[in-house]
Amino acid sequence: TSVESESLDYEVIENYAYREEQAQRGKLYVGYYIGVKWLFSLLIGIGTGLAAVLINISVENFAGWKYELTFSIIQKSYLAGFIVYVLFNLLLVFSSVYIVTRFAPAAAGSGIPEIKGYLNGVDTHGILLFRTLIGKILGSIGSVGSGLALGKEGPLVHTGACIASLLGQGGSTNYHLSSRWFQVFKSDRDRRDLVTCGCAAGVAAAFRAPVGGVLFALEEVTSWWRSQLMWRVFFTSAVVAVVVRTAMGWCKSGNCGHFGSGGFIIWDISDGQEDYSFSELLPMAVIGVIGGLLGALFNQLTLFITSWRRNYLHKKGNRVKIIEVCLLSMITSVISFGLPLLRSCSPCPEPEPNSDIDCPRPPGMYGNYVNDDAIRNLFSAKTVHEFSAQSLLTFLVMFYTLAVVTFGTAVPAGQFVPGIMIGSTYGRLVGMFVVSMYKKSNIEEGTSKVASMTIVSVIHISLLFRFMHLYALLGAASFLGGSMRMTVSLCVIMVEITNNLKLLPLIMLVLLISKAVGDAFNEGLYEEQARLRGIPLLESRPKNQMRKMTAKEGCGNRKLETITARDAERHMHLNEAHFYFDNHTCIFFPGCLRYPVCNVGKATLKVHQIASGALIVSLLYCCFMFEHHILLVMVHSITLQHLTDTLLIFNMWKVVCFPRVVKIADVVSILRGNKHNGFPVIDHSRNGETLVIGLILRSHLLVLLQSKVDFQHSPLPCETRGGHMPIRHNFSEFVKPVSTKGISINDIHLSSDDLEMYIDLAPFLNPSPYIVPEDMSLTKVYNLFRQLGLRHIFVVPRPSHVIGLITRKDLLIED
Amino acid sequence: TSVESESLDYEVIENYAYREEQAQRGKLYVGYYIGVKWLFSLLIGIGTGLAAVLINISVENFAGWKYELTFSIIQKSYLAGFIVYVLFNLLLVFSSVYIVTRFAPAAAGSGIPEIKGYLNGVDTHGILLFRTLIGKILGSIGSVGSGLALGKEGPLVHTGACIASLLGQGGSTNYHLSSRWFQVFKSDRDRRDLVTCGCAAGVAAAFRAPVGGVLFALEEVTSWWRSQLMWRVFFTSAVVAVVVRTAMGWCKSGNCGHFGSGGFIIWDISDGQEDYSFSELLPMAVIGVIGGLLGALFNQLTLFITSWRRNYLHKKGNRVKIIEVCLLSMITSVISFGLPLLRSCSPCPEPEPNSDIDCPRPPGMYGNYVNDDAIRNLFSAKTVHEFSAQSLLTFLVMFYTLAVVTFGTAVPAGQFVPGIMIGSTYGRLVGMFVVSMYKKSNIEEGTSKVASMTIVSVIHISLLFRFMHLYALLGAASFLGGSMRMTVSLCVIMVEITNNLKLLPLIMLVLLISKAVGDAFNEGLYEEQARLRGIPLLESRPKNQMRKMTAKEGCGNRKLETITARDAERHMHLNEAHFYFDNHTCIFFPGCLRYPVCNVGKATLKVHQIASGALIVSLLYCCFMFEHHILLVMVHSITLQHLTDTLLIFNMWKVVCFPRVVKIADVVSILRGNKHNGFPVIDHSRNGETLVIGLILRSHLLVLLQSKVDFQHSPLPCETRGGHMPIRHNFSEFVKPVSTKGISINDIHLSSDDLEMYIDLAPFLNPSPYIVPEDMSLTKVYNLFRQLGLRHIFVVPRPSHVIGLITRKDLLIED
Ligand SMILES: Nc1ncnc2c1ncn2[C@@H]1O[C@H](COP(=O)(O)OP(=O)(O)OP(=O)(O)O)[C@@H](O)[C@H]1O
Ligand SMILES: Nc1ncnc2c1ncn2[C@@H]1O[C@H](COP(=O)(O)OP(=O)(O)OP(=O)(O)O)[C@@H](O)[C@H]1O
Ligand SMILES: [Mg+2]
Ligand SMILES: [Mg+2]
Repeated sequence: TSVESESLDYEVIENYAYREEQAQRGKLYVGYYIGVKWLFSLLIGIGTGLAAVLINISVENFAGWKYELTFSIIQKSYLAGFIVYVLFNLLLVFSSVYIVTRFAPAAAGSGIPEIKGYLNGVDTHGILLFRTLIGKILGSIGSVGSGLALGKEGPLVHTGACIASLLGQGGSTNYHLSSRWFQVFKSDRDRRDLVTCGCAAGVAAAFRAPVGGVLFALEEVTSWWRSQLMWRVFFTSAVVAVVVRTAMGWCKSGNCGHFGSGGFIIWDISDGQEDYSFSELLPMAVIGVIGGLLGALFNQLTLFITSWRRNYLHKKGNRVKIIEVCLLSMITSVISFGLPLLRSCSPCPEPEPNSDIDCPRPPGMYGNYVNDDAIRNLFSAKTVHEFSAQSLLTFLVMFYTLAVVTFGTAVPAGQFVPGIMIGSTYGRLVGMFVVSMYKKSNIEEGTSKVASMTIVSVIHISLLFRFMHLYALLGAASFLGGSMRMTVSLCVIMVEITNNLKLLPLIMLVLLISKAVGDAFNEGLYEEQARLRGIPLLESRPKNQMRKMTAKEGCGNRKLETITARDAERHMHLNEAHFYFDNHTCIFFPGCLRYPVCNVGKATLKVHQIASGALIVSLLYCCFMFEHHILLVMVHSITLQHLTDTLLIFNMWKVVCFPRVVKIADVVSILRGNKHNGFPVIDHSRNGETLVIGLILRSHLLVLLQSKVDFQHSPLPCETRGGHMPIRHNFSEFVKPVSTKGISINDIHLSSDDLEMYIDLAPFLNPSPYIVPEDMSLTKVYNLFRQLGLRHIFVVPRPSHVIGLITRKDLLIED
Repeated sequence: TSVESESLDYEVIENYAYREEQAQRGKLYVGYYIGVKWLFSLLIGIGTGLAAVLINISVENFAGWKYELTFSIIQKSYLAGFIVYVLFNLLLVFSSVYIVTRFAPAAAGSGIPEIKGYLNGVDTHGILLFRTLIGKILGSIGSVGSGLALGKEGPLVHTGACIASLLGQGGSTNYHLSSRWFQVFKSDRDRRDLVTCGCAAGVAAAFRAPVGGVLFALEEVTSWWRSQLMWRVFFTSAVVAVVVRTAMGWCKSGNCGHFGSGGFIIWDISDGQEDYSFSELLPMAVIGVIGGLLGALFNQLTLFITSWRRNYLHKKGNRVKIIEVCLLSMITSVISFGLPLLRSCSPCPEPEPNSDIDCPRPPGMYGNYVNDDAIRNLFSAKTVHEFSAQSLLTFLVMFYTLAVVTFGTAVPAGQFVPGIMIGSTYGRLVGMFVVSMYKKSNIEEGTSKVASMTIVSVIHISLLFRFMHLYALLGAASFLGGSMRMTVSLCVIMVEITNNLKLLPLIMLVLLISKAVGDAFNEGLYEEQARLRGIPLLESRPKNQMRKMTAKEGCGNRKLETITARDAERHMHLNEAHFYFDNHTCIFFPGCLRYPVCNVGKATLKVHQIASGALIVSLLYCCFMFEHHILLVMVHSITLQHLTDTLLIFNMWKVVCFPRVVKIADVVSILRGNKHNGFPVIDHSRNGETLVIGLILRSHLLVLLQSKVDFQHSPLPCETRGGHMPIRHNFSEFVKPVSTKGISINDIHLSSDDLEMYIDLAPFLNPSPYIVPEDMSLTKVYNLFRQLGLRHIFVVPRPSHVIGLITRKDLLIED
C-alpha cells in the first residue's frame, strides 16, 4: 500500500565525470550559476504568487457567481435555488476530482506530507511533475470553490514546490518544455534548495506571510539549512508578497470580478486592544488543552479513515473516488444551505446608525463558509452578536465531522483553513463563556454599586469585543498546534495573518500547551499521514534505543535469513560478493546438530562437529570474512552429508559488492537479484589485500548499462591498459529527473555478446563515501546521516592507524 | 596578539564513565532534564529581560538627571552648564571604563564577535564569566548613559549569553554561587544550546523583537540547529518580550523616574502609508549603494583603528585605555553640546495649534542623541521640518567620525544604534533630495495647470511625511546591512522595531543591494573583528580550493619541518609515537646526497644511497609507517656518517599517538612536548596488528593526571588483569567550566614514583571519533566538521572491506 519512493542524495558524487566538469568551469560559469540561482528564486516567487492569485480570483469568482445565481433564483423558488446551489457545487467538485483522478493522481490531498518527505530526503514518485502542478492548481480551484470543508493553503505549498522543482530541471521534459540553458542544477542538493524556496513561497502566498513562510520551510528542513539558503528563501517569500500585493492592488480597481475585498493582511486585528490580565491566562490555557485534545482526535480519526480508504475504498478504482467526493459535496451543500435555517435570528440590539456592530446577515448566507470572509467574521470584533452559543456549537460539530470526512478524498485539500474555522469556533465559545462569567460577577458587584453600573458596562462592551476576536484567534492557533504540531512557523504565521505582534506571547502559550497535550496522544498530522503513505521520514532526534546499538548492529538486514544450500550455491555466482558472519552466527541443521563456523586467518575453515545437544560455541571476537571458495567448502561439506535441500538458517548479513572491473552478466544478475541502490566497489591492491575504492549507485550502473559505450573486452582496469581514462559520459547523463521512476533493470536489453564484456567502474563511482567504524553508536551515525543528508554510510572495521588529524586550524585556509 | 581560545566539542564522548552514567538514568531523570531545560529557558528570558530593563531605566535616568541639572544651570551661566554637562558625562564614562579595565577586561566592546565565535565552536577565555556579566551590565549603563556614540544592543546580546552560560554551569563556581541541582548540562552541546537561547534573548530584549532574536541566533548558528532548539529559543524570546512589556507597563505609572515614554514597539511607524511607486525604487537603490559603501568604509576604518589600538595603544596598559575613553567622552560632549548651536533654527512654518508637525526644539538639546528618542525623531513623520539638509550633513560627518573612533575602546559598546543613526541620517538626506526633485517637477507641472495646484500640494505634503520616515528607515537598514552583512535577522528586526510588515520587500531590496556592495570590499564587521582577535570562525561554505585537496593534504602541519638529528633522538623518547612519511618525503643531507627512504613491509628500511646529483626517487604509493626502532636505525646511519648536527629537512607529519597503556612519564613528556588537544590511542590486537581504539582529549588526560587514582603499577590493560574495569570517576569530573583556561600540564605535580606508574586509557577515551578516508575531498571533510560541530576528525587509510551499509531504512527504528 505504500507509495513508491526513493531516497535523495545530498552527497556530491565526486567521480571522474564530475571532476572533469568542475575543472572546465571558469569564473564565468560560477557567476552564471549564481545568477541562475537568484533568477530562479525570483521566478519561483513570481510563479507561486501568480498561482495563488489565480486560485484566489477563480475561487472567489466561482463563489460569487454561485451566490448571485442562487439568490436570484431563491427569490422565486426556494427549492430551485437549493437545487441550483447543490448542482453548481457538484459541478465544481466533479471537475476537480475528474482532473485529479484522470491526470494527476499525485495532486490529491494537501501534498504537505510528500513535500515534507522530499525536504527530509525522500522523493515520492510523481509528486513534483508538471501534470501534478496543473492538476493541483485546477483541482484546488474546483474543490475550494465548491465549498467543501478544505482550504487552499496546503495545495499552494505543493504548487510552489512543483514550480521550483520544474524550474530546477529546466522545465518539463515530458512536455518538451525544457531548456538546456537552465539545466544547471544537477545535484539533489541544488534541487532541494529550490524546493525549499518553493515551499516557503507557497506558505507566503497562502497566508501572505513571508516570514512565516521562511520559518515553515526552516522548521521542516532544519537539518541542511545554510545561511545563504535562508537569505534566498527569504527573497523568494518577499517576491511572493510583492506579487500578491501588486495583484491585489490591481484587483481593487475592480478588474477581478467578485474578488477584490481582501487586504494584504488576511485577518487584520491590529486595532484590537493589547492588554490582558493574568486571570485570563486560565481560560487561555483551557483553550490550549481543548485544542490539543481536538487536534489529536482529528489526527486519529483522519488516520483511521484514510487508512480505511486506502485499504478498501480506493482499491476499487477511480470511479469510487469520484462518487465518494460527489456524495460528500452534496452533503456539504445541504448542510451549508440548511444550517443557517435552523438558527433563530436574534434581532440587532440597538439599531444605531453609527454603531460598529453589524446586524447579523439574513439566513441562507452561511454558504461558502470556508472562506476568508467567514474567518474574518469569526475573528472580527464587530460581529459580537452574530453568533449564538448554540449555533456555534452546532457549527463546530458539523464542521468538525465534515472536515474529518473530507480529509483524504481525491481532491486537492488543505487543512489550515478548516483548522482555523474549527479552532476559532470553540475559541469564541470559550470567549462567550468567559464573558458571561464576567457579566455575572459584574452584575453581582453592580447591584451593590448602582452608581458605577454604567462605567462597568462600558468596560464590559469593550472587553466583549476583545474577547471575541482574541479568543477566536487563540482557538485557531490551539487547534492547528494540536493537530499539526508546528510551533515557531505557526506562531509567526498567526501573527502575520492577524498583523498583531503583541499577541505573540499568548499565541505561544496556547501553542505550547496544545502541542504538549497533543503529543501525549499521537504524532502530528503530517507525520501520521507520511507514515501511512510509507514515506520514511527521519526525525531530527535519534531514537533512544539507538544509544545502546552500534553501527554494526544497525546496518543491513539483520533478520534471520533462510537459505537452502542450493541458494547458497546460487549466491556464489556473484564473483566478488563478500559474506560476513558475526560472532553470533551459527548454522543450524535439522537434527539438532550445531556446527559453529570459525575462520581463522582467511582461508581455513574449521567445522567443529559437536555432538547433538552440546552446543558450546566460542567464536572469535571480530567479524569473519568468508571468501568465495570458503563458502563453497562449507556447502560442500553439507552436501556430503546429504543435506542439499535442508535449511541453513543463519543470522547472516552480506554486503553486495562489486569488483572494480566486473562482467556485465554479473552486473545484471546482481542488480536483478536485489533492490539495493548502492554498492561498495572493492579492488585488490598490489600486495593482494582488498581495498574499498568507492560506492556505485544503481542508477548510475543502469545508465552505464543502457549506453554501453564503456564496455570493454579485457578484464583489466583501463589505466593499466594504457594511459588516461577515457571519459565518454558527461555528468548530466547521470542525473535522474525528479519524481520519476527512472530506468529499471528490466528496461535494459543486452545481447549475449554484451553480457560477456566487462566494465571498469572506477571512473564512475563515488570515491569517498562517508565511513564509520563498526562500533560507533547508532546515535552518532544517525546524526551524521541526517545532518549531512546522506543516502549511504559504509560501516568499516576499525582503522589500523591514523594518517592525520583534522582540527579547526587545518580548515582555516585563506583564499 | 590573539586572544586565547579553545575549540568546543559537540561530539558526545561515549566513554565508559558516560555510558555508566547513561545506564543509571531512569525515565525520571529524563523528565527532570527536560524540565530543567525549559526552566532555564524561562530563567534566561527573565534574566535577560530584567537586565535590559535595568540598563534602560538606569540610562534614561542618568540622562534625565544630566539634562535637568544642565538646564537648570544653563539658565544662569552657559559655561557652567557646559562644564557640568561635560563632567557628568566624564564621570559616567570613567566609572564604566574603570570597571571594565579593572575587573572585566572581556566586557569591553560589543561581545558579538566572541559570542559568534562561541556559537561557531570557539570558546574565548573569559568571555562568559560572572564578572564579565557584571562588568558588561554596569559598564554599558555608564557608557551609554554618557552619550558616547555607541549603543546598548551588542552588550545586551553578550549579557544574555553570559546569563545563559552561567545558568548552564549551575552558577558561578568562582563566587560560590553554584548549585549542584542545576549542573545537568555537562556537554558543550547543551551549553551551546543555552547560549543560543541567551543570544536570542539578548536581541529580543534589545530591540523588543522576539522573532528577530530567534532569527539572529539562527543566522549565526545555522550549522547545528534543530527544530526543538528553535522552539526553545522562541520561547525564551517570548518570555523576554513579556518581561520587558510588563516592566514597561509598570514604568508607565511613573515608577521609573525619567524612564517611561517607550512603547513596546521602539520606533512605531505602522501608521505610515504603505504604497510606493516603482519610480521610487531608484532612490531606494541609491540608498542601498550608499549604505554598502559607507558600511564597508566603516568596517575598514574600524579595522585599521582597532588593530592600531591593539598593537600600540593598548599595550601600554590600562591607564592609557582609561585616558583614551575619557578624552573621547569630552570630545563627544563638546560636539553634542556645540553642534546644535551651529544650526540656524528655521521657524515653524504654520503655528497651527492642531498641527501634527512639531516645532523644532531649542538649541542645546541634541544632547543624548544616541537615544531611542532621537531615532524616533529621525524616523518620525511628524518632524519634517526639524532638520535642515545642512545640519543633517554636519551631523552625519561628525557622528560617523565619532562612531569610528569610539569603536574598539575599552567600554561595552554596541554598533546597532550608531548604525541606525548614521543610516537614517543619510536616508533622510536622500529623502529630502527626492522631495525637492518631486517639488520641482510638480511646480513645473503646476504652472501649466494652475487649477490642480492645491490638490498637488496636498498630495505633496502627505508624500513628504512618508518620505521622511520611510527613507530614514531604509537608510538605517542599508547601513546596518552594509556594515554587518546580516540579512534575514536584520530585516525582521527592522520590521519588528517599526511594527510595519508592509515595508518588508523594500527593506529587503535595500539590504540585498547594500550587502552586495559591501561584500565587494570586505567582510562583515563582526567577521573582520573576529579575525583581528584571532577567533577562528568557520564559514558555512567551504573554500573553493578545498575541492582540489584531499583530507590527507588538509591534515596536520604540512609545513616543512627542520629537525636536527639530535631532535630526532629526542622524539624517540616518545614510546609509541608514530611517524608517517608520505610519498613525497625525502631526506636531504647537506652535500647534495639524497637518501630516499622507503619502507617495504613494516620492519625493514632501505636507504638507497644515490650519488650526488642523481635523485630519481620512486617511493611507494601509500603512506609509510615508521616504527620507533626504524627511525632509530635511520638516525643511527646518519650519526655513523658524522652528521649528528646536520639538518634533516623533511615534509613530515607525525601524529602524536598514545598506546593504550602508557607510562605516566611518557604522558607528561608528550603533553609538554606539544599543544595538541586530542590524541589517537593505538592498541595492538592479538595478532600483532595495530588498531586505533579511540581519541583521548588533553583535558581528560590532565584530569586523570591530577586525580592519580587510576594509576597502576602493571603495564597491562586492566581487564586482562582480571574482570571489570574499575571506574573511579564520574562523568562530571571531566567537564571543563566554560570560558576558563582549565588546568595546564604545568600545574600538575607528580612524584618520581608516580612517573614510573602506568595508566590504562581505554575507559576514558572516546571510542568512536569520526573518521574519513585519506582521499576524501576536503570540501566534504569541511562539511562534516562544520555541520556536526566537531573538534577532531581522524584521517585513516582506505578500509579493506565493508562490514555493512547503513541506509535510511536501517535508521527507521520504531520505539
Ligand atoms: N549493497 C548492499 N549490500 C547489502 N545490503 C544492502 C546494500 N545496500 C543496501 N543494503 C541494505 O538493504 C536495505 C535496503 O536498501 P536500499 O538500498 O533499498 O536503501 P533504502 O533504505 O531503501 O533507501 P533507498 O532505496 O531509497 O536508497 C537496507 O537495510 C540496507 O542496509
Ligand atoms: N595528536 C596530534 N598529532 C599530530 N598533529 C596534531 C595532533 N592533534 C592536532 N594536530 C595538529 O596540530 C594543529 C593544532 O592542533 P590543536 O589540537 O591545537 O587544534 P586546534 O585547531 O588549535 O583546535 P583546539 O586546540 O582549539 O582544539 C592542527 O593542525 C592539527 O592538525
Ligand atoms: Mg529502497
Ligand atoms: Mg589549539
